[in-house]
Amino acid sequence: MSFESDNTASVHPSILAAIVRAGEVRSASYGSDPWTRQLMPRFSELFEAEVAVHPVLTGTAANALALSELTPSWGAVLCHSGAHVLTDECGSAGYLGGGLTLVPLEGEHGKITATAVEKWLSTRRSGDPHQAPASTVSISQPTERGTVYTLEEIAALGAVCNAHEILLHMDGARFANALASVGCTPAEMTWKRGVDMLSFGATKNGAFAAEAVIDFRVICGNDLLYRRIRAGQLLSKMRLVSAQLLAYVSEGLWLKLAARANEAAVQISAVLAGLPHTHIIHPVQANAVFVEMPRDTAERLYAAGFKFFHRMSPTGNLYRLVTSHDTTAQELGKFLRTLIRTDAGGARQQFN
Amino acid sequence: MSFESDNTASVHPSILAAIVRAGEVRSASYGSDPWTRQLMPRFSELFEAEVAVHPVLTGTAANALALSELTPSWGAVLCHSGAHVLTDECGSAGYLGGGLTLVPLEGEHGKITATAVEKWLSTRRSGDPHQAPASTVSISQPTERGTVYTLEEIAALGAVCNAHEILLHMDGARFANALASVGCTPAEMTWKRGVDMLSFGATKNGAFAAEAVIDFRVICGNDLLYRRIRAGQLLSKMRLVSAQLLAYVSEGLWLKLAARANEAAVQISAVLAGLPHTHIIHPVQANAVFVEMPRDTAERLYAAGFKFFHRMSPTGNLYRLVTSHDTTAQELGKFLRTLIRTDAGGARQQFN
Amino acid sequence: MSFESDNTASVHPSILAAIVRAGEVRSASYGSDPWTRQLMPRFSELFEAEVAVHPVLTGTAANALALSELTPSWGAVLCHSGAHVLTDECGSAGYLGGGLTLVPLEGEHGKITATAVEKWLSTRRSGDPHQAPASTVSISQPTERGTVYTLEEIAALGAVCNAHEILLHMDGARFANALASVGCTPAEMTWKRGVDMLSFGATKNGAFAAEAVIDFRVICGNDLLYRRIRAGQLLSKMRLVSAQLLAYVSEGLWLKLAARANEAAVQISAVLAGLPHTHIIHPVQANAVFVEMPRDTAERLYAAGFKFFHRMSPTGNLYRLVTSHDTTAQELGKFLRTLIRTDAGGARQQFN
Amino acid sequence: MSFESDNTASVHPSILAAIVRAGEVRSASYGSDPWTRQLMPRFSELFEAEVAVHPVLTGTAANALALSELTPSWGAVLCHSGAHVLTDECGSAGYLGGGLTLVPLEGEHGKITATAVEKWLSTRRSGDPHQAPASTVSISQPTERGTVYTLEEIAALGAVCNAHEILLHMDGARFANALASVGCTPAEMTWKRGVDMLSFGATKNGAFAAEAVIDFRVICGNDLLYRRIRAGQLLSKMRLVSAQLLAYVSEGLWLKLAARANEAAVQISAVLAGLPHTHIIHPVQANAVFVEMPRDTAERLYAAGFKFFHRMSPTGNLYRLVTSHDTTAQELGKFLRTLIRTDAGGARQQFN
Repeated sequence: MSFESDNTASVHPSILAAIVRAGEVRSASYGSDPWTRQLMPRFSELFEAEVAVHPVLTGTAANALALSELTPSWGAVLCHSGAHVLTDECGSAGYLGGGLTLVPLEGEHGKITATAVEKWLSTRRSGDPHQAPASTVSISQPTERGTVYTLEEIAALGAVCNAHEILLHMDGARFANALASVGCTPAEMTWKRGVDMLSFGATKNGAFAAEAVIDFRVICGNDLLYRRIRAGQLLSKMRLVSAQLLAYVSEGLWLKLAARANEAAVQISAVLAGLPHTHIIHPVQANAVFVEMPRDTAERLYAAGFKFFHRMSPTGNLYRLVTSHDTTAQELGKFLRTLIRTDAGGARQQFN
Repeated sequence: MSFESDNTASVHPSILAAIVRAGEVRSASYGSDPWTRQLMPRFSELFEAEVAVHPVLTGTAANALALSELTPSWGAVLCHSGAHVLTDECGSAGYLGGGLTLVPLEGEHGKITATAVEKWLSTRRSGDPHQAPASTVSISQPTERGTVYTLEEIAALGAVCNAHEILLHMDGARFANALASVGCTPAEMTWKRGVDMLSFGATKNGAFAAEAVIDFRVICGNDLLYRRIRAGQLLSKMRLVSAQLLAYVSEGLWLKLAARANEAAVQISAVLAGLPHTHIIHPVQANAVFVEMPRDTAERLYAAGFKFFHRMSPTGNLYRLVTSHDTTAQELGKFLRTLIRTDAGGARQQFN
Repeated sequence: MSFESDNTASVHPSILAAIVRAGEVRSASYGSDPWTRQLMPRFSELFEAEVAVHPVLTGTAANALALSELTPSWGAVLCHSGAHVLTDECGSAGYLGGGLTLVPLEGEHGKITATAVEKWLSTRRSGDPHQAPASTVSISQPTERGTVYTLEEIAALGAVCNAHEILLHMDGARFANALASVGCTPAEMTWKRGVDMLSFGATKNGAFAAEAVIDFRVICGNDLLYRRIRAGQLLSKMRLVSAQLLAYVSEGLWLKLAARANEAAVQISAVLAGLPHTHIIHPVQANAVFVEMPRDTAERLYAAGFKFFHRMSPTGNLYRLVTSHDTTAQELGKFLRTLIRTDAGGARQQFN
Repeated sequence: MSFESDNTASVHPSILAAIVRAGEVRSASYGSDPWTRQLMPRFSELFEAEVAVHPVLTGTAANALALSELTPSWGAVLCHSGAHVLTDECGSAGYLGGGLTLVPLEGEHGKITATAVEKWLSTRRSGDPHQAPASTVSISQPTERGTVYTLEEIAALGAVCNAHEILLHMDGARFANALASVGCTPAEMTWKRGVDMLSFGATKNGAFAAEAVIDFRVICGNDLLYRRIRAGQLLSKMRLVSAQLLAYVSEGLWLKLAARANEAAVQISAVLAGLPHTHIIHPVQANAVFVEMPRDTAERLYAAGFKFFHRMSPTGNLYRLVTSHDTTAQELGKFLRTLIRTDAGGARQQFN
């Protein structure tokens, strides 16, 4: 049983079925197929606005293409120091974006604040070409720390961006988890708060490989079509991705799956919070739990067959537990029982 | 019924089944899954040599990553003036390759010759940094004209490359069709003739989206791992591609499918060759037929529901017919009957 | 005595003096100095329009920055197959332009025609992202063959570009030679004929290292400031370049120097035209002469100490003679006398 | 009188004279001239080792080309958070380096330590392509804070780099100031301590525009020749730069000029240290002084005609004073007298 990452989950049966249906017939190539043609109306309906939808294969591609579209090659993208685009995409945004600059900002719980952006901007020499000008702010929703920006926080960032003519990008690799957590509409979390472009992820929540760049102001016209093929992201059988995306948002599947994953994380955090020797580091608002616990406790969980990441933090042993759409009640129950027993044991040992 | 492109075909049931089997279970992410781990031994066996296999999503990605690996950003890639990398990938190799230069060479039937490469090289000022130095030769096998390089032609190119310390890349988007046409082993068509890297395509011959860079001399070490993630080509569920590739080469499926497509093209060309007003432009050696025929003939075929591309050539109306792994005997029969009837009619009209 | 290239000439004394005057005083850095500040008004006056002037160090930098500004990274630049940007700048435009594509067009005497551009455009599939869309046409004035576009030819290209929403770039590495040849104003040769951006060269005509991008429609706003520093082209003592540019256009120096070089080329071509065994290949309209002559004749000129380039052409031995602002009357006289003597000798030998 | 930057200084007469001598004659182009040919033997002698020398126009070009040579496009360069390459070159290294990543490390007085590099490396997941691998460490000598690495500090960094197969780059925009400060040989400060490549600057210390990449292990072969022309840094009259570089290192001129600038900074810091309300922030080891002083004191100095930069720091008003090779004794005397008077006044006012 793995809590390593939602990347190791299975593909949801409805999405597998959609893949099969799309694959067993002939269809027009390069996005002229009926599935891809449906994306724009379907997502425009979903987001209550006319949006452009550019399906791609990976979250890295979605982020790098979105940022390269929003930012000139000489521009700077402000993001959290722990943002996925900065720490886990091997510089893809710089590569596909012609050498654009990612600027790390610090912030609690994986979030950057409007104030931090304002403060950074105030240190810049305006119009001096020695400094890469701030072109874009990129936030992750949920963040890499399992927290979720409130609508007010997003609106504040949107307002700062607007005041400084900076564009706002949202990395929504787990967008559904954020929506399920906040309980608002997709529109309320994005363009209504000033988000210009969204990396919309489905892969971590039940799809096989399906992401999309959602362009709320149709800012980029057809430019992204050119960028996309040049990154090798234009499938001849584009319906492979589009069919997944359509199935994913059909009948609320995406939100149901995300709610399930979120709920499992809440249950884990509830148990952890009641244990004497653990310390939850970040508010648990999506499907990830960051917890400090005794090394010994973790070792016993590992020995019981559970998998999850460990790393040293300044204050001790930090562990990350990620739940997923296919985490079952039985698995969760077994983990929680083991955890309670183990912590008790760990505690005993610690004080013996 | 479409002869527009093998891109519009259905996915072969065995490959769809492999996708489902890979998707319905949990597995390790980013290529640590059992499917991806099998690729290197499986392809090394297939190619009778230790090869590195880098699965990617599209032929454009395979070509651009291979060329960017073989060619420094200041280098030149020599290819046919009609090569896919030059005419149909929107400059992807230049983009992902840091501004590398593609140099078009002319040549009959979509092929470049060792002599043409030698001649081009002889016009260069050696060591003069004003000129992008030739680093790579890229050939398509089969070519974009439906022809296939003989093993001798490849060997001659390999020898020229070797003599000038130039690397040899093969764009094998339809590699199986070439193999089925020549009837040799994969090794005989590639590294035994001097090919250093192969873009191995499965998508046009029954897969959904599955290509791979095959590195015969493990030239690039791990560099391609970095290049690949930066192009957004590293799937978290890499097994989506790897499972397709494994199913594709299992029990000779790839060669059976390619032979079927090739055979359909041969049948079409046989009928066309017997018609009085058509002229086959290139030898039909894979699954594409390039033919000049009266506009009227084509119009009647279109009217009967057949689809295929038209463009003006210097000598008249040129049409391209592409067969595919799922072209059925019934469809082919219907097309050929219509063609014979139509041409007779076209001829009558022409002379009335 | 060298007719190899105008690159090997000396620097004109007025320009050297301007360099010294600018260097011996302190001044503001990065283009805030009085020399650089004068560029925009001075060149706006010269070109009878408000222009932006971006001084850079080399013609390659001017071309690559101009093209990267006019062309999106996925766009195509149409140019002559012998254009300097294509053949002698080691792919700089592709490098600085994010992988943009240079498309070679053929044309007599180093020129491309409006008709050739139209014809090429007519073969493209509009809006298909597989093909790099034509964004810019780049012409060299004078061309690499020593010919000069007429104002009508430029206007025709300007009109085609305008009709297709394509921008028109002029590589004016030897712009003064073209002006001196045609005898029109700078405005008449550029923006009045539809040119959007000019690479303005001074280095080949008396300066040490001084080029500029002239932006006629101030298309790029401040973007080029960012591109320029990123290419390492923003000097802290920018006055080094600006002082040269100001001295160069002061009191018509540039046109006087260009006229002198052109006149020397005309004299050489007049003598060559009178010789029985030579064949001038391109109209001599600037400061270069392309001539086929017996190998023997050339060898005797080499033996007499004259230098110039040779290369094999399909029809024989082709030689290029380039005159310069500092070609003296004595040198020219000596060369012409040797030439006449030599050719006579060459002829004798040839027929013996 | 300006203490804003050594960029605003005049050019030393010997260097101007060298420019004139190189310009008034004809010579071979693109670096085949006698001046450029002398660079390699001259600098090899200077550095007591066979080195390759690549003259360029600006420090940004030197840094970006050196880093792009040392670092694959997917690699990371570790540097101080205040490094010039990171903060003042508008992302040039990312641009010319194909999207390479600059990683900011913190460190006192503008320096990074071997320990900080080790610590950062220890947090990385080795071989995981999600993370840009560390390829290069770049240090500035002197730093942007006017401090100078000791030979021991450089050796420690060299040892860490060597242990991790990382290359060590030194940004020596003011290399002479560091040498004059430490009093060692060029070899002792560079390759003998593990430095692989040096950006050698002359522009800030008496030249007009002259920098060079010094490659100690001739790592890059001819690759840098290609990179250089593609960045528009290959002058046709390369002797413009080479003549400056030769004059600069002739008869110890460079070290004399640097010593003069350093000495002026020491004198300023000595006076500042004796004032009651100022606080020198960083050790003054080259030609820059960073000082906190009362706003009022600064305003009076400004009113007296002196120029220097101000910025807010967390602890108050921070000022930077940069001396230069052409700072005269009279100017310095006047400034110091004004400073003493002003501070007394400032102090009186402050306590009144």
